[in-house]
Amino acid sequence: MTTPALASRLADIVGTANVLVDDAAMLPYTVDWRGAYRGRALAVVRPDTTEAVAAVMRLCAETGTSVVPQGGNTGMCGGAVPDATGTAVVVALGRMDRILSVDALDNSMVVEAGCVLSRVQDAAAGVDRLFPLSLAAEGSCQIGGNLATNAGGINVLRYGNMRDLVLGLEAVTPDGSIWNGLRALRKDNRGYDLKQLFIGSEGTLGVITRAVLKLLPRPSERITAMLGLGSAIAAVQLLSRLRERCGDIVSAYELIGRPCFELVWRHIPDTRDPMAGPHPWYVLVELAAVGESERLRENFESVLAEAMEREWIADAVIAESVAQAQALWRLRETIPEATLAEGPAFRSDVAVPVNQVPRLLTEAVAALSARWPHPRIICFGHLGDGNLHFNVLAQSGDELDPVWSAAVADVLYDAVDRYEGSFSAEHGIGQAKRAALVRYKSEAEIALMRAVKRTFDPDNRMNPGKLL
Amino acid sequence: MTTPALASRLADIVGTANVLVDDAAMLPYTVDWRGAYRGRALAVVRPDTTEAVAAVMRLCAETGTSVVPQGGNTGMCGGAVPDATGTAVVVALGRMDRILSVDALDNSMVVEAGCVLSRVQDAAAGVDRLFPLSLAAEGSCQIGGNLATNAGGINVLRYGNMRDLVLGLEAVTPDGSIWNGLRALRKDNRGYDLKQLFIGSEGTLGVITRAVLKLLPRPSERITAMLGLGSAIAAVQLLSRLRERCGDIVSAYELIGRPCFELVWRHIPDTRDPMAGPHPWYVLVELAAVGESERLRENFESVLAEAMEREWIADAVIAESVAQAQALWRLRETIPEATLAEGPAFRSDVAVPVNQVPRLLTEAVAALSARWPHPRIICFGHLGDGNLHFNVLAQSGDELDPVWSAAVADVLYDAVDRYEGSFSAEHGIGQAKRAALVRYKSEAEIALMRAVKRTFDPDNRMNPGKLL
Repeated sequence: MTTPALASRLADIVGTANVLVDDAAMLPYTVDWRGAYRGRALAVVRPDTTEAVAAVMRLCAETGTSVVPQGGNTGMCGGAVPDATGTAVVVALGRMDRILSVDALDNSMVVEAGCVLSRVQDAAAGVDRLFPLSLAAEGSCQIGGNLATNAGGINVLRYGNMRDLVLGLEAVTPDGSIWNGLRALRKDNRGYDLKQLFIGSEGTLGVITRAVLKLLPRPSERITAMLGLGSAIAAVQLLSRLRERCGDIVSAYELIGRPCFELVWRHIPDTRDPMAGPHPWYVLVELAAVGESERLRENFESVLAEAMEREWIADAVIAESVAQAQALWRLRETIPEATLAEGPAFRSDVAVPVNQVPRLLTEAVAALSARWPHPRIICFGHLGDGNLHFNVLAQSGDELDPVWSAAVADVLYDAVDRYEGSFSAEHGIGQAKRAALVRYKSEAEIALMRAVKRTFDPDNRMNPGKLL
Repeated sequence: MTTPALASRLADIVGTANVLVDDAAMLPYTVDWRGAYRGRALAVVRPDTTEAVAAVMRLCAETGTSVVPQGGNTGMCGGAVPDATGTAVVVALGRMDRILSVDALDNSMVVEAGCVLSRVQDAAAGVDRLFPLSLAAEGSCQIGGNLATNAGGINVLRYGNMRDLVLGLEAVTPDGSIWNGLRALRKDNRGYDLKQLFIGSEGTLGVITRAVLKLLPRPSERITAMLGLGSAIAAVQLLSRLRERCGDIVSAYELIGRPCFELVWRHIPDTRDPMAGPHPWYVLVELAAVGESERLRENFESVLAEAMEREWIADAVIAESVAQAQALWRLRETIPEATLAEGPAFRSDVAVPVNQVPRLLTEAVAALSARWPHPRIICFGHLGDGNLHFNVLAQSGDELDPVWSAAVADVLYDAVDRYEGSFSAEHGIGQAKRAALVRYKSEAEIALMRAVKRTFDPDNRMNPGKLL
């Protein structure tokens, strides 16, 4: 079918205004937010109901057209950007942005896939509940994308990944059928849990259209503190002790190497060192509880006193106001921006068991130093999840050298693999990490993944060139 | 291959002592614990390593033999018992009962599939951690079975189902390959999460051999109370308020209809009504926290005072000692035994959204009463999960009338389906609920499930006649 003919049939489904075929108009959908991945599309279609998505999918099935589902286009691995062939239709979910219900009594809400994460958080807060997923792109990423990539972020330690925050799903399969798994059940053992396959599948098995999300009690009290430490192992020990003494109210536990903050203080206005002296490592810790303020603070301070005595920590700053807490978080959150300002860098998103993080750090630094003397390592991450963004600044030049970058990846990922870790903790595979998938996953596992893919998408039309 | 020839080759793998072919010797493996499901087997084989399981599976693949994986044989739906054909080999995992590691710093442990649940709980407690899965059969059920059925139990409200307590899995696929997903990672987005398929698959996709389990902070303080209520809706409202005021430290919230307790007081020695007057409904509630005893009690009592004022509850008994708490739990835990003593009963395990439980109860009671006047309903369950064991005593006779039982199921499950619920919340499908699966799941979903089954087990040799 010619492009105009397909566009005309797409327009019959969603209206002319919601079918884009002009290259300039399609640009926000064919290039990722960082400009790192550029593709081409046959058309961009913007349906606003599940039925419209299904009709688009049936048309694509009939015409043998590939489909690239897209949410907020905020991914880190190019998973939502079409490939260079220009043969795929991008199905952009942004118009499906209705919050269909918010139920405080049931602790659940039903949303369409195109809802921006921060709106979902706000709707939960509106009924005095918490939707805990929180990540840098929350102002523009969409729930459908969060689901398709099993998003992580800063609260995983306490609340789990996106996978753990979903009760039910609706998705459209490649043949255009609607799979309705949209139930608000806490327990349901009626056969294989198919929603688990869609979660984290990066658009390669179908298009997620709606979800039932889990809500949680909203913490009324919060303690935010920055700690200065001599080593990463001390940070692991302190986390373990904190959870022993305070329970699972530790909601964030971010490890930050001093070089990260040095970039922040250099490049980000109105930031400064909150501590008197320098420390090799910092931890930004947050505790959140319901109605326990005094006792919470007492407990926390007593654990800090113990940690001082054991020399796990050298200094601590506890935020005395919301503004101070925000200032501490700003130091953490602007690290990516400050790194970008410093120059090109290899970026990663790795995970190992929590107690192996210190060993991985030592080994990775040694291995990199052996090959490239004095590497400038910018390492921070979600220590509570064993998840590090272990980044290395390029030693020169304005552009990232892909050969050097790939070599750094091999050194780091090999070390991660020795600790039975993951080269992609929360960002997924997309286009970026397909080679690593083949290198580090067993053939048997990849064969099983391919078999699952064939089962759902026998013609390989869903998000081709991604993940597998 | 003849049975003796197969038995001899099985013995080559696991030793003669671990191959049973005699009907009497096989009896504990071919009949379920209640005597409700009786099957036959070609042989029972008891491997003690993953490699031995793989060798057994390869032999079965080579000879076209069916395989029934079996853990503690404590299931409610006959999922672990072979069918009547006598053509399957039962692979009993009980000898694979090693706890391979318990890591307090990483909050994880690695166990073999044959570990009994209570041993896993004890091993976690031994390093001051909690493994939260808790259910009636914990003294004999095995982790492999808990995984294969995605077990639920009394702490799901706070900690989730078995699915939520697993970091990694190892399984042997039907062709005898070992799939190694045994990683202790909190975040790992490298493609489809295959372990999710094995969890809850009831032995139809492969044999689970080892798992990495998640550990949690161990609560040091616990409050147990029995509340008397006028209605189920009041119980839902109170739960919502409790979580608002106390956070997610509500670890159990069991709704119990008075007829349940009347059976307990009649049939179970040394039990008595803990309250002065009768109430239509009771809630057994437990709060568990780390190092917050006084404050916890204060908060709880203040919520109870509010609940009294709002007339959500009419009476409350708070346990003042561990013995008193155990006595309250005994009233709840002996309901199944007391029901059995009273006579035959239709039993169920249904779930609806938490806030729909009161409406479901009203509707189900009305529908049953319309057909069978004055039904004796024994209803209790995990209200925090919307999960009820809605049971009905047979009106006469010593044996359960299967026609009546099926008719009651239809009435109840139809009502559950109208509330978008599940006719099997935590017990799975097994042999017992295959007809219901076909009746209540969409054809499209069953087709997808069958496709997944074919992908993993093209010859349909894994636990035939179960689930699908």
